[in-house]
Amino acid sequence: MKRYQLLIAYDGTGYSGWQIQPTGISIQAILQSAASTLLKVDTSITGSGRTDAGVHALGQVAHFDAEDSLDLSQFLRSMNGMVPKEIRLLSVQPASDTFHARFSAIGKLYRYHLCLNPVYNPFRRLYAWHYRGRVDRDLLQAAANRFVGKHDFTSFANSASEGSAARNPIRTIERIEIIDRDGEVQIEFEGEGFLYRMVRNLVGMMMAVATGRRSLEEIDLLLALCDRRAAPMGAPAHGLFLVKVKYPLERMDA
Amino acid sequence: MKRYQLLIAYDGTGYSGWQIQPTGISIQAILQSAASTLLKVDTSITGSGRTDAGVHALGQVAHFDAEDSLDLSQFLRSMNGMVPKEIRLLSVQPASDTFHARFSAIGKLYRYHLCLNPVYNPFRRLYAWHYRGRVDRDLLQAAANRFVGKHDFTSFANSASEGSAARNPIRTIERIEIIDRDGEVQIEFEGEGFLYRMVRNLVGMMMAVATGRRSLEEIDLLLALCDRRAAPMGAPAHGLFLVKVKYPLERMDA
Repeated sequence: MKRYQLLIAYDGTGYSGWQIQPTGISIQAILQSAASTLLKVDTSITGSGRTDAGVHALGQVAHFDAEDSLDLSQFLRSMNGMVPKEIRLLSVQPASDTFHARFSAIGKLYRYHLCLNPVYNPFRRLYAWHYRGRVDRDLLQAAANRFVGKHDFTSFANSASEGSAARNPIRTIERIEIIDRDGEVQIEFEGEGFLYRMVRNLVGMMMAVATGRRSLEEIDLLLALCDRRAAPMGAPAHGLFLVKVKYPLERMDA
Repeated sequence: MKRYQLLIAYDGTGYSGWQIQPTGISIQAILQSAASTLLKVDTSITGSGRTDAGVHALGQVAHFDAEDSLDLSQFLRSMNGMVPKEIRLLSVQPASDTFHARFSAIGKLYRYHLCLNPVYNPFRRLYAWHYRGRVDRDLLQAAANRFVGKHDFTSFANSASEGSAARNPIRTIERIEIIDRDGEVQIEFEGEGFLYRMVRNLVGMMMAVATGRRSLEEIDLLLALCDRRAAPMGAPAHGLFLVKVKYPLERMDA
C-alpha cells in the first residue's frame, strides 16, 4: 500500500461541507464513494480539516492509501468523471508514508470576499458577502491588526457540532491582509491553524467594528473574556475560501 | 411620460434567454412583471437585442416608459428587491424620447470564455467552455483574422426560431481579439451588430480550425457559400457574455 496526496477545489454551494455528516451531502463522502467504487475497496479520504456548509475551497488537501501501482493520471481523470461538476481533483501525487493531510499541515491560507457595492455583481452572489452599510476601511484594518499574533481565540470559536473540539484555543495568526481586488474587498488570513468557525467569526467582529457596532477596544476585551456568546455573529459561509494548506516538505500549489 | 434607460447584468444559467418565449422564464418577462407591479401599470421593457438561453450579460441595455417623476434610486432598489438574485439592475437613468435600446445601438461587445486546462476550475463551470483537446493558438488567431471586416455571415447565422429573421446578413466585425486572462482564453468580438447565434457560430468555426477539424481556407469558402448547414456547430451558450452595448450619444459603462 502507498499513500497519496490530493489537491481538491470545490464550490461549496449546496453541500454540507467537507466532513461527512449525518445529514446532507459532504465533499468527503462524495470523494470516498467515488474512490471506493473506482479502486474496488473501501477507501478513506482524510482532509486537512473541515470546511463548513457553503464554504468553498481552491486548494483543499487530503490523503488516502491505495495500491502501489496506481495510475495517477487515469485515477484523476476517472475520479473527475465520477464526482459532480462542483468538485474537481486538481492533482494526485505520491506522498511519504508519514504524510497526514491534517497532522502534517503547518499552515493555512483562507480568503474572505466582501462586496461593498450598493448593487452586487450577480455573478458573485454565491462567492462574496454583499454588505450594504457603510464600512470604514481604516477601522477594518485596525481590527485586523488586533487579531494578528498569538491569542486565546475562545471568544471567536464555535464549539464543533460533533467530533472533538479543539483542546487548545490558542492560535497564532501570522497575517491578516485587506486587499482591493476585482471590485471586491478580500481579507486574507494566514496562520498555523484556525479553530472551528474562527475565520468567519473574526470577519464578523472586524465588520462589527468597521460599521461602528462594536469598538476596537472590545476586541481586546473579547480576547481576554474567552466567551463566544459575548462576540458578534460570524460572517456568512459563502464568502469564505480555503485557498491553500501548507506542509513542511512539499508545498502544493493550486 | 418619460423614457428611461436600464443597465442590466444577469447570470443566464437556467433562464430561457433575454426575450419572452412561449416556454421557460426569460429575463425580459421577469423585469416587465416586476416593473408593471411596481409602477402599477403594464410596462414594456425593450432590450438592445436578445441573448440566448444560458448566455450571460454584464451590460445589457433596455428602455421603458414611465411617469416623469420616477424616483430613480427608489426604482432601482425596489426592482432589485423583486427580481431573482441572478438578475441585477446596475443603473437606471433618464433617456431622450428618441432613445431606443435596439435601434439606437451602434455597436456591441461580446466576450467568449474558453477554459483549455486539462482540469477545469469548478467555479468557472457555468461561465467558460471547457475544451480538452489540443488548440493551436496561432490558428485560432488566424481564423479570427479572416472574420474581421465586412462579410455576408449567412453561413454563421441561425434562422431565428421566432420573430423576424434579419433581412440583411451583411455585418462588419471591427475587432476579434484573443486575450489570455485569469487562466482562460477570452475572445472579444466588437462590431456594429451580430446576427442570431453569430458569435457562438464564429467561435465554433474558429475552434474547428484551431483543433485541426477544418482548414483556414474553409472560412473563406463558407463566407462565400452562404449556407449555415455547411458550417460546424456553434460553441456552447454558457461561455458567452454580452459585455457592452454602445450608443452614439451616451456610452453606458458596466
